[in-house]
Amino acid sequence: MKNWLLLLLCWGAWLSGQAQEAPATTTDEDAFYIRRIYDKALTDSRCYSWLEYLTTRIGGRLSGSPQAAASVEYTRWVLDTIGFDTVWLQPCMVPHWVRGDAEQVRVVNSRKMGSLELRALALGNSVGTGPAGLTAEVIEVNHLDDLEKLGRSRLEGKIVFFNRPFDPTHINTFAAYGGAVDQRAYGAARAARFGAVGVLVRSMTSRLDDVPHTGSLAYEEGTPRIPAFGISTNDAELLSSLLKEEPVRVYMRSTCMHMGEALSYNVIAEMRGSERPGDIILVGGHLDSWDVSGGAHDDGAGCVQSMEVLRLLKTMGYKPKRTLRCVLFMNEENGLMGGRTYISESNKAREYHMAAIESDRGGFTPRGFTCEGDATVFEAKFKKLAQWMSLLEPYGLRLSKGGSGADIGGLKSQKGLLIGFEPDSQRYFDFHHAPTDNFDSVNKRELELGAAAMTALVYLLDKYGLD
Amino acid sequence: MKNWLLLLLCWGAWLSGQAQEAPATTTDEDAFYIRRIYDKALTDSRCYSWLEYLTTRIGGRLSGSPQAAASVEYTRWVLDTIGFDTVWLQPCMVPHWVRGDAEQVRVVNSRKMGSLELRALALGNSVGTGPAGLTAEVIEVNHLDDLEKLGRSRLEGKIVFFNRPFDPTHINTFAAYGGAVDQRAYGAARAARFGAVGVLVRSMTSRLDDVPHTGSLAYEEGTPRIPAFGISTNDAELLSSLLKEEPVRVYMRSTCMHMGEALSYNVIAEMRGSERPGDIILVGGHLDSWDVSGGAHDDGAGCVQSMEVLRLLKTMGYKPKRTLRCVLFMNEENGLMGGRTYISESNKAREYHMAAIESDRGGFTPRGFTCEGDATVFEAKFKKLAQWMSLLEPYGLRLSKGGSGADIGGLKSQKGLLIGFEPDSQRYFDFHHAPTDNFDSVNKRELELGAAAMTALVYLLDKYGLD
Repeated sequence: MKNWLLLLLCWGAWLSGQAQEAPATTTDEDAFYIRRIYDKALTDSRCYSWLEYLTTRIGGRLSGSPQAAASVEYTRWVLDTIGFDTVWLQPCMVPHWVRGDAEQVRVVNSRKMGSLELRALALGNSVGTGPAGLTAEVIEVNHLDDLEKLGRSRLEGKIVFFNRPFDPTHINTFAAYGGAVDQRAYGAARAARFGAVGVLVRSMTSRLDDVPHTGSLAYEEGTPRIPAFGISTNDAELLSSLLKEEPVRVYMRSTCMHMGEALSYNVIAEMRGSERPGDIILVGGHLDSWDVSGGAHDDGAGCVQSMEVLRLLKTMGYKPKRTLRCVLFMNEENGLMGGRTYISESNKAREYHMAAIESDRGGFTPRGFTCEGDATVFEAKFKKLAQWMSLLEPYGLRLSKGGSGADIGGLKSQKGLLIGFEPDSQRYFDFHHAPTDNFDSVNKRELELGAAAMTALVYLLDKYGLD
Repeated sequence: MKNWLLLLLCWGAWLSGQAQEAPATTTDEDAFYIRRIYDKALTDSRCYSWLEYLTTRIGGRLSGSPQAAASVEYTRWVLDTIGFDTVWLQPCMVPHWVRGDAEQVRVVNSRKMGSLELRALALGNSVGTGPAGLTAEVIEVNHLDDLEKLGRSRLEGKIVFFNRPFDPTHINTFAAYGGAVDQRAYGAARAARFGAVGVLVRSMTSRLDDVPHTGSLAYEEGTPRIPAFGISTNDAELLSSLLKEEPVRVYMRSTCMHMGEALSYNVIAEMRGSERPGDIILVGGHLDSWDVSGGAHDDGAGCVQSMEVLRLLKTMGYKPKRTLRCVLFMNEENGLMGGRTYISESNKAREYHMAAIESDRGGFTPRGFTCEGDATVFEAKFKKLAQWMSLLEPYGLRLSKGGSGADIGGLKSQKGLLIGFEPDSQRYFDFHHAPTDNFDSVNKRELELGAAAMTALVYLLDKYGLD
């Protein structure tokens, strides 16, 4: 027994013995300061309680909704109380789409199952079916290009069911998402070209469960706008198996609609730089979410982490050389109007974002950062960043080339470095755009480690610059 | 809208573009084979459904319990049906401890709160209080050494409450565990030296919640055996705050007891090597668990991953040069008798374990492997292993020096390499030894990725050896 307990006691010690060496270009002071950032983030953070408020007291924050307005007021208030140099709201017009009644989607003619409800959510931006709903035969396809092969003769008056699953062999689940999301984004527009009257899309997750996922679609100019729904992966499997046996007719009803545009805001807080205030370092996430959950991983987590970055530095007494800006973007989910407005205003003001970091891949354990930028400057800046890796590796972080974030992507023309915070991706699409994306799906330590990782990078960016 | 959707579509593609280069000492064939292993593990695994059976149909598998016996029969049956060269049970005698009635722990004299139940679990191996229970005043301490300072005059007849929390600043949570678990392991024995009649221990987790955690304690020869309980971290905080205001008396009752020894088994399956059958490569976990949950992360996950390693290689038609052995150890939690028996029998048979991998840190996203070994041979073997890292890095894996696993630690004298599978540690102690360690806390992909990582390493170990 004793030997065994001794083993167990030593185990923790062994595991924690990771080397931490400062690189030639930076100093021991940096390693020490980054350690202080982590200590502070793990013992005295606010982000988890902010997230609780945002996701449980306010809830789903769809652009134009009362909850979105509440989230603007709440985060502005929080940022105001921390005492940054400036906190302001940047107005932007956003599309105001509402879901309406609970969706109904059901198989109406199955000999085997009788009337069978499918768990469904209208896709964002979708038109409604009208109050009477509609009934039509279902045609299953796996690719947008299958539509052309089937042609109008087979598709006219039908409901097209897109059922290509995530490819589970991708290690990074965002690659699987990228390989399937064309069905959700463009399925309705493409099916409408051939006279289809509605669309069902298999939910964007590799998980087999009963949870339907929503998410945006885009219509085409000049083709009819037809209603589209996401259905759960279990129901997609079931529907597909029914279709192998008999023709299937589905009734679908939704009353979602566009309410025009609404005034909303990006929420911005700034610590002004003492030496190079014209060099802006942005950290941000998006404040809006879908309406069907608390929007915890997408993207409450990214917002509270970004707020935490500035709070940690402020409360540690850090005086930035460069201007640090926390931006909570509105309307990433169904229009990107917050991001577009921000960039347009920034360009008008001839600002220079030396670096921008977006956190919009969930509040999971940090794995590192992915970077992109204008081709004429990218390699030099990435190389500079890579020199700091030995300071970040002890915290399980790596740097790689890759996408940054939807809201900040347009800043590329300012020729700074665009950086995406990269948490572990395995569980993200269990929750993404689904009614399960709630506060209880976020782990406090994982969230805090993300805030610490972003803060450490902001510290290095501010101290050493990229130019 | 369109631009935004395009961004979104490209994003997945960018993120997946990670370089994957084969190193000089291995071949492209290896990179290809490892990719095949991952593809198979992510599309055609069995481990998740095995885990469901083990954790939900069988449940908690405390040594000596009917469930432990059922788990031996179930896993032997599964391994038998896969068709390995040999599947056998290795007998071992294990301690049979039973929890008895649901524990009662309550504050009985709080002016503020009246009678207050504390959520508690008897610690494993603890004696019971007797059917009448016991009531005594509580003294809070933070360190074992505090007892000496207080002395018998302050502790005699008292209940000692160990309340030192996890240090949240450790990045690896096993280090925080290693820094706190002496309270649980030795608290009762040390308090009994000074005449204490019972012990309460703050649960071994950094999470603040209502879930009590169990886990083993060890008594000392020559000092009385006094009953000990883990209480939830929220209740530990509450009790501590009450103690700041007034003396607190607690009633505690447990009927747990030792039932002597029971016959049980390690479950072993083997694929015999074609060229060097005397070189054994072991993969394993422990089949027993605590009784209060399904034992999903600890260590159902490690068992089904180890079984999956051999199944993947078998079904891929792989013919090992060396002998591959899956070992499901009994009684890691409260005695380590399975591990001890295995090593003793192995030494008697003059076996050589060239490498042994244990998975016993949960079924979370893989981060890599930690390695240890006899000092006379370790550096050379570790260096050999490190040459393969470029094959494993594309899967997010790293190698480091550190502990392997409690069951395999004793194999060190055979001078092979001992390897611990290292998943992400952040959430492990949310579930460890707690009623929440159930099937629904394990993510299918994370579990499968762990099995794939272990299989890839076994493939390289088998193909290239370490000598």
